[in-house]
Amino acid sequence: MQKIALPAAALSLLIASLAHAAPPALDKGPDMVPATLSNVAAMREAALRDDVAMDIIEGLTTEVGPRPAATAKEAEARTWAAAKLKALGFSNVRIETYMMPAWVRGEEEASIVAPFPQKLIVAALGNSGSTGKKGLEAEIVYFPTVADLQAAPDGSLKGKIAFVSNQMMPTQDGSSYGAYGMARFVGPNMAAKKGAAAIVIKSIGTDRHRMPHTGVTRFEEGVQPIPAAALSGPDADQIERMVKRGKPITMKLLLTPQFNGKQESGNVIAEVPGSDPSAGIIMVAGHLDSWDLGTGAIDDAAGVAIVSAAAKRIMDAGTPRRTIRVLLAGAEEVGSYGGNAYFEAHKSELHVLTSESDFGADRIWRVDFAFPESAKAVADRIATALIPLGIGKGEHPASGGADNALFVKAGVATVDLQQDGTRYFDLHHTADDTFDKVDPQQVRQNVAAWTAMLAVAANAPESLSAK
Amino acid sequence: MQKIALPAAALSLLIASLAHAAPPALDKGPDMVPATLSNVAAMREAALRDDVAMDIIEGLTTEVGPRPAATAKEAEARTWAAAKLKALGFSNVRIETYMMPAWVRGEEEASIVAPFPQKLIVAALGNSGSTGKKGLEAEIVYFPTVADLQAAPDGSLKGKIAFVSNQMMPTQDGSSYGAYGMARFVGPNMAAKKGAAAIVIKSIGTDRHRMPHTGVTRFEEGVQPIPAAALSGPDADQIERMVKRGKPITMKLLLTPQFNGKQESGNVIAEVPGSDPSAGIIMVAGHLDSWDLGTGAIDDAAGVAIVSAAAKRIMDAGTPRRTIRVLLAGAEEVGSYGGNAYFEAHKSELHVLTSESDFGADRIWRVDFAFPESAKAVADRIATALIPLGIGKGEHPASGGADNALFVKAGVATVDLQQDGTRYFDLHHTADDTFDKVDPQQVRQNVAAWTAMLAVAANAPESLSAK
Repeated sequence: MQKIALPAAALSLLIASLAHAAPPALDKGPDMVPATLSNVAAMREAALRDDVAMDIIEGLTTEVGPRPAATAKEAEARTWAAAKLKALGFSNVRIETYMMPAWVRGEEEASIVAPFPQKLIVAALGNSGSTGKKGLEAEIVYFPTVADLQAAPDGSLKGKIAFVSNQMMPTQDGSSYGAYGMARFVGPNMAAKKGAAAIVIKSIGTDRHRMPHTGVTRFEEGVQPIPAAALSGPDADQIERMVKRGKPITMKLLLTPQFNGKQESGNVIAEVPGSDPSAGIIMVAGHLDSWDLGTGAIDDAAGVAIVSAAAKRIMDAGTPRRTIRVLLAGAEEVGSYGGNAYFEAHKSELHVLTSESDFGADRIWRVDFAFPESAKAVADRIATALIPLGIGKGEHPASGGADNALFVKAGVATVDLQQDGTRYFDLHHTADDTFDKVDPQQVRQNVAAWTAMLAVAANAPESLSAK
Repeated sequence: MQKIALPAAALSLLIASLAHAAPPALDKGPDMVPATLSNVAAMREAALRDDVAMDIIEGLTTEVGPRPAATAKEAEARTWAAAKLKALGFSNVRIETYMMPAWVRGEEEASIVAPFPQKLIVAALGNSGSTGKKGLEAEIVYFPTVADLQAAPDGSLKGKIAFVSNQMMPTQDGSSYGAYGMARFVGPNMAAKKGAAAIVIKSIGTDRHRMPHTGVTRFEEGVQPIPAAALSGPDADQIERMVKRGKPITMKLLLTPQFNGKQESGNVIAEVPGSDPSAGIIMVAGHLDSWDLGTGAIDDAAGVAIVSAAAKRIMDAGTPRRTIRVLLAGAEEVGSYGGNAYFEAHKSELHVLTSESDFGADRIWRVDFAFPESAKAVADRIATALIPLGIGKGEHPASGGADNALFVKAGVATVDLQQDGTRYFDLHHTADDTFDKVDPQQVRQNVAAWTAMLAVAANAPESLSAK
C-alpha cells in the first residue's frame, strides 16, 4: 500500500471537516428524515444487525442457483427477485426485458495425450468456439504471458493449441485482474488471428484449487471464435512442469459450447419513491445473472442483496428526499447488456448518483468519489459516516461498476464502496462461488456502509449534479 | 488436546533417560555407523536440507499423475518407481505383482430436478454400482447422520436415494475420520440392504470446496452394489437448505463405473542391505497407487518419497546393522491388496520393525511406539532424537498403517511418526490432491524424522523383537 504522511495542518482540516459534517438546515417535507450525523449513525449501527441481505443471498443461490445470462435460469431469477422486492415493500417493482446473443456451455474435457498422459480440468470461456463432438488433438505452444503470445509471428500457431500461463496474485483493490486478465480478455482473439486451432489459459484466479475460472472473452468482428478454455491453476502448473522437461506436449480438447442466437434477458427494477422528484434519482445496482459453474453467491447475489437491504433500510426510516432506484441488472457477465439496456431506456430521467456493488461479499475498506465540486460537502459527510466501519477515503476518483458505467461516462456522480478483494479471485467465476463462502458479518458491514451512504446522499439538501 | 502434567519425579527420569540415550558399546562391523546421539543428530540436521523426497513427489505426480489400483497407470507408476529407486542406488529393486478385482470410474453427473433445478458435483465411491447409461431419478430421503440411516425401517428406502449428510471437522490426529467416515465405509451397504436405489453422502472431508472426496466403500457378500457417490460439502449443504424448505426433492443421478474382473497390481521393493542378517529386517512403507481424481501428491507420493529419501540417507552413511526394506505398496486405497500380498510373500522373513508414512506431507508432531519391553531403550533413544524436530512422544501405543497392518497384528514392533492431519482431509481423495499442496519444508522435517528413527533403529545393538 501507499504510505500516507499526514501533516499537522491536514489533521486540523480533517477535524474541522468532521465538526462541520452535519448538513446545513433546510426546509424539509413532513416525512423527511433529516440526515444528521446522529441518525445516520443510528441507521448504520442498526444495519450491522441486518438479516435481509443474507436472506436474499441464501434464497437466490438456493432456490434459483446458477443463472447464466439469457437462459431460463436467469428468467427464473427475475421472477424470484421481483417477488422478493415486492414482499420487502418496494414500489414500482417491474421487469424490463431486452434481447441479446446467447452462448451456452457444452461438454468439456481435456487431457494430456503425450508425453505424460493424464486428465486435466478445464472450463470453456464465454464465447468460446466448439471443437466439434470429436474434439481436437494438437501440440501445445507455451507462452509464459500474453505479451509472449502477442510476440509470436503470424501463422506460427497454425494447427497448434496456444497455452498462456500467467499467475495472478491477490490484491486488496483487485487491480491485478486488469493486468493478468488480458490472457482471457484478448488472448483468444490474438491466438485466433495467429492461426491457432485453440487456446487454453491458466485461470485468471488467485487460488490453488482445481477449479477453472470461466469468464467472457471476445473475438473481433470477422474473427472466427476458436475453442478457448481456462485450466485450473494446478493443471496449468502441471503442464509447465512438463514443458520444463523439453518434450513436445500433445493435448486433447473437447469443448462443445453453442451460440443460441438472440434470447431474452432482463432487468428487475424497484423503487423507494422520494419526496422531491426534482432532486433526481439515486440508482444503486447489483447484477442478477451469474456464471453457470457456481451459484453466484459472491458474484453477484451479494451485491443484489446489499443494495436491496440498504435501500429497504432507507425506505423503512421514512420517505427520503430523492428516489432510490434499485437496479438488479441482467447479463452483466457477458457484456453488461442489462446495464446498457437500462441506460438506453432511462437516460432521459434525472439520475444524480449511481453506484454498483459487484466485488464480492467481503468488507468495504475504502470509499472513492466522483462527485462534482458543488457536492464535495456531501462526499465529506458520507466519508465521515463511514469512518466507524473501518472505511477510509481513497485518493483517486471513483470509476463505477459495469452496470452504471454509461452514467459515469455521461458525468453522473458515482461513489465506489470498495470491497476487500483479497480472496475474491479465489472464487470468482468458479464452481466454488457458493453460499458457504459468504461471511454474514462482512455482509452486514456492507449493508451498514450502503445504508449510511444512501442516508446521507438521498437526503442531502445540496445538488448532487454538476448542472 | 490432552493436558499433560509433568511431575518433578517424571522430569528427573526424563533427564536421566536423555543422559543414557547413547547405546551400549558393542562390537560392530567395519562399515557400521555407530548410532551415537551426535551422529544421529548430524544425519537428522542434514536431512532438513533433503531434496530427494521433493524430487520424487514432483516426478511421480507429474510424469505419472493419477495411478488408480490395478490400472495401466499404476503399472506405469511401478516402472517409474523401480527406475527411480535403482537410480538412487538401492539394492534388490524389484516388482512383485498380484491379481486383484478392479473397479473403474465412469461418467458421473447429478442434479436436482425439483423443486429447485440445478447441477450438483459428485464423484462415485470405489465399488459403487452403476445407474446404467440412462441414469436414475428418484426422491431423496435425508439422514443427518449414518445412525439415522441405520434407524430407518427395512424397506423404507425402496426406490429412493438415501442422502447422508454429516460434516467432519478437522483434527490434528485425524481421529474424526473414523467417526464421520462411517457414512462412506458402511452407509452404502446399509442403504442397499434397506432397499435404496442409490445413496449420496456428504464428502468425508473438512474443506469447503466443490470437490467431492471419493474413497472406497464395501458391500457385504451377497449385497448387490447400488450406485453410491459423494457430493462436495457445499453441494450437500445446498440440499440441506432445500430440505429445510419442506418440499420433496427429486434428484437425477448418472454413475457408470465398471467392475473389470481381476487385473494385475503390484508392489515395488528396494533394499539397503544390512551387515547382520540375524538382526532382522526393518520395513518402511508408502503406497504407490492413488485415487484417480487428483495426482496423489499427499496420498501417497509423499509417503513413498519420505521413506525412500530417509532410507537413502541411511544407505549413504554406510552399511546399517539391519536391512532396511522399502515397500512401495500397490492398491492400498481399495483394500491394502499390496500390503497384504507383501505380507503373504514375506512373512517368513524376520521383520523386526515395520512402519508406514501415509497421512500426507505435513510435519510430524508426535511419535508413538509399539515396541516390546526389551526394546524400550531403543524407543527412548528414537524419541530423544526427535525432540529437536518438535516431535513429542505420545501416550498411546502405535497402531501402524494399512500396509504394515498384518505385521502389527502379528506382533512385530511398529513406530508411528504421526503427521499433522489438520488439513489432510481438505485434500484427501479429491482432484485437489496435487503437487502444489506439498510444503517442501514440512516434507524435509518428515525426512529428518524418518532418518533419525532409522539411524537409531537400524543400528540398535538391542533386539527389536519380543522373541
